[in-house]
Amino acid sequence: MKNKLLDKINSKEAVIGIVGLGYVGLPLMLRFCESGYKVLGFDIDENKVEQLNAGRSYIEHISSSDIASARKTLFEATTDFSRGGEADALILCVPTPLNKYREPDISFITKTVESLKPYFRGGQVVSLESTTYPGTTDEELMPRMECGGLKVGKDLFLLYSPEREDPGNPDFTTQTIPKVYGGVTENCLEIGAALYGAVIDEVVPVSSTRAAELTKLLENIYRAVNIGLVNEMKIIADKMGIDIHEVIRAAATKPFGFVPYYPGPGLGGHCIPIDPFYLTWKAREFGLHTRFIELAGEINTSVSNFVVTKTTQALNANKKSVNGSRILVLGISYKKNVDDMRESPSVLLMEKLRELGAEISYSDPHIAVFPKMREHQFDLSSVSLNPKSIAEYDCVLLATDHDKFDYDMIKDNAQIVIDSRGKYLESAKNIIKA
Amino acid sequence: MKNKLLDKINSKEAVIGIVGLGYVGLPLMLRFCESGYKVLGFDIDENKVEQLNAGRSYIEHISSSDIASARKTLFEATTDFSRGGEADALILCVPTPLNKYREPDISFITKTVESLKPYFRGGQVVSLESTTYPGTTDEELMPRMECGGLKVGKDLFLLYSPEREDPGNPDFTTQTIPKVYGGVTENCLEIGAALYGAVIDEVVPVSSTRAAELTKLLENIYRAVNIGLVNEMKIIADKMGIDIHEVIRAAATKPFGFVPYYPGPGLGGHCIPIDPFYLTWKAREFGLHTRFIELAGEINTSVSNFVVTKTTQALNANKKSVNGSRILVLGISYKKNVDDMRESPSVLLMEKLRELGAEISYSDPHIAVFPKMREHQFDLSSVSLNPKSIAEYDCVLLATDHDKFDYDMIKDNAQIVIDSRGKYLESAKNIIKA
Repeated sequence: MKNKLLDKINSKEAVIGIVGLGYVGLPLMLRFCESGYKVLGFDIDENKVEQLNAGRSYIEHISSSDIASARKTLFEATTDFSRGGEADALILCVPTPLNKYREPDISFITKTVESLKPYFRGGQVVSLESTTYPGTTDEELMPRMECGGLKVGKDLFLLYSPEREDPGNPDFTTQTIPKVYGGVTENCLEIGAALYGAVIDEVVPVSSTRAAELTKLLENIYRAVNIGLVNEMKIIADKMGIDIHEVIRAAATKPFGFVPYYPGPGLGGHCIPIDPFYLTWKAREFGLHTRFIELAGEINTSVSNFVVTKTTQALNANKKSVNGSRILVLGISYKKNVDDMRESPSVLLMEKLRELGAEISYSDPHIAVFPKMREHQFDLSSVSLNPKSIAEYDCVLLATDHDKFDYDMIKDNAQIVIDSRGKYLESAKNIIKA
Repeated sequence: MKNKLLDKINSKEAVIGIVGLGYVGLPLMLRFCESGYKVLGFDIDENKVEQLNAGRSYIEHISSSDIASARKTLFEATTDFSRGGEADALILCVPTPLNKYREPDISFITKTVESLKPYFRGGQVVSLESTTYPGTTDEELMPRMECGGLKVGKDLFLLYSPEREDPGNPDFTTQTIPKVYGGVTENCLEIGAALYGAVIDEVVPVSSTRAAELTKLLENIYRAVNIGLVNEMKIIADKMGIDIHEVIRAAATKPFGFVPYYPGPGLGGHCIPIDPFYLTWKAREFGLHTRFIELAGEINTSVSNFVVTKTTQALNANKKSVNGSRILVLGISYKKNVDDMRESPSVLLMEKLRELGAEISYSDPHIAVFPKMREHQFDLSSVSLNPKSIAEYDCVLLATDHDKFDYDMIKDNAQIVIDSRGKYLESAKNIIKA
């Protein structure tokens, strides 16, 4: 089985199944097509599948023309999981969110495997790319794959290989970001080398799926903790009358031993605020606490209160209350230059200020209309920025520092700018660093 | 006064006084001499001054020949602080330790300034390089300098410019490490540009001495917190049966957004375990806690218990108790390839194991005899390593991973190796990762 599958992969006859056609699955699909593999894409969302089959992208940084040209040749999308048997490799790129108790919700993984289970056959490899806690692959996937009598390592092969997509990063692509993978057995590892080595420049084997799972978590824990640290430092420096952004820029001139992270209004996106808590949950099984993760979570959440307080104080200095003030939030995506609003701290700020009675507007060059979100409701469209429109607001709150904003024009016309991104280096009467 | 001092600095007629002739002061002295300045070195330690005046170094990585050639031309050391008036610049490089309650002890700074005070004259610049909390320069130094009637910014000039020495780092020198500095006034900042710009390739002005003080603290807080984080991760990964060093190496293949820090047996040296608590102390004045710093301190201290437990368990597996076992500690300096034992975690491990009844020996190619230390007492000399000597110990504890150790020989002959540095990549029956 192993050699047959290796031959298929090496000769590019293998059909690659990619389950979950989003931020992770689509770039991977494009990369496999580019390398000459036939790709069968699976998703439960009929609308997405229709759009993709019509050659259209629904993600800003993935071009429709790339989807269309893959579609013309080697790519097909489907909602029909019974076609799972057609694929030689099944790569799972489904979401792993937290439930409302901030515990791992791996139901997208388990439901995917349950849907595919009837169609597993000898000679397939399954690779999980979703970020998750150590043990998911061997505790949750393996038993489900083996329950039909097929044996992992002999009939079927099982990998964990974390996605490392960084939307909007111009320096790296799916092909050039080294790919870590671990196999349940030595045979699995060998298949992993062939599968990923066929499309990615550098592959990095580790000794187990658990080591690979923890690798991805560590990457994002590192980030969450370092952002938590500078957010705490921001609050301390502010009280001492020191601009933390100036301090970080100065520290960044040290040519070794220091890497700058910058504070902001809170953590956003689908990774950094979520992934670390997968380890927190699993650690409890071993009677352990993940204290850095919990502290970072607490501070990165509470930093929005700091920004709200700074806004309240700035309005108060102008003899205004938040209640009744017109506040314009600049940037509502979770990071600059993208249209992704998942876990955006801007939305949290908007809600907190609205709750205090503010009349909220927003402007975002990447998001024309405030989208429907499960837990957030704003009936708003992006305000177009010009000297007159900006001057009308009692306060402008810079939440996401898109490159497309005209920062000089904003500063020159706003009554108050609350700068939560350290964008303004100089001191000015109407600029409040928050 | 300002222009006269600038002229003296620019024409290299200025005499540079350096107070505190240790790890920081000596390289700075050498750099000023190399650039053609006369340097008068001050220290309270008569023995050090004698050695230096005789052209000898007392620090392993600073060569005696460099001291001797500076001595022959432009350098002189003295214990006589009444000569302070001879210097146009007075650069303070004195220690800033913690007292036994882990509070800042800035007495070396204040005593230095008190000693120099009678000899301050118009046209001098004082620059503090010791790591300290924000506010030290303007709250502690400035009033002492002005009490004789001289005015800072007009008659005298005052800077804070943190040292960034990294002993043993082959890639950077005093000259090539960018130098951050802040001045109490604009005139002070201008003098700072001339003084440091004369000997250092890149100078980085910041808006205040407080910003410069916090810059240095942030650099070391970042390090302490990241080491704390991986030490916590080590303990969690260990319980999950995962090798944290393998995970960190794999994560380090990510070409953006991750920087590897490695766990160890605890924090050492004169900076990382100490400096962050300077901010902790100052923050209290503002009613604030530095929670990341405190958590890092707690974990970095407790990690030695983890190593002791691993040692106990490994001996127990061989049916031995710590009590009565012969344990050889490899490496007793605080980091590899240096002879510096300040705050070395190895010493803490030695004490804890001795307290449990172990018979402790050590081997360190950089430290022939266990030195006299204020708070630690061991009457030991370095054991020379060979297959026979190593095999005689019940357990070998790798605490500091000097390059000079023969790791294969150690592994091949030791009954047990407790590896607290992730030096051994492979698994082996006698290697315990701790």
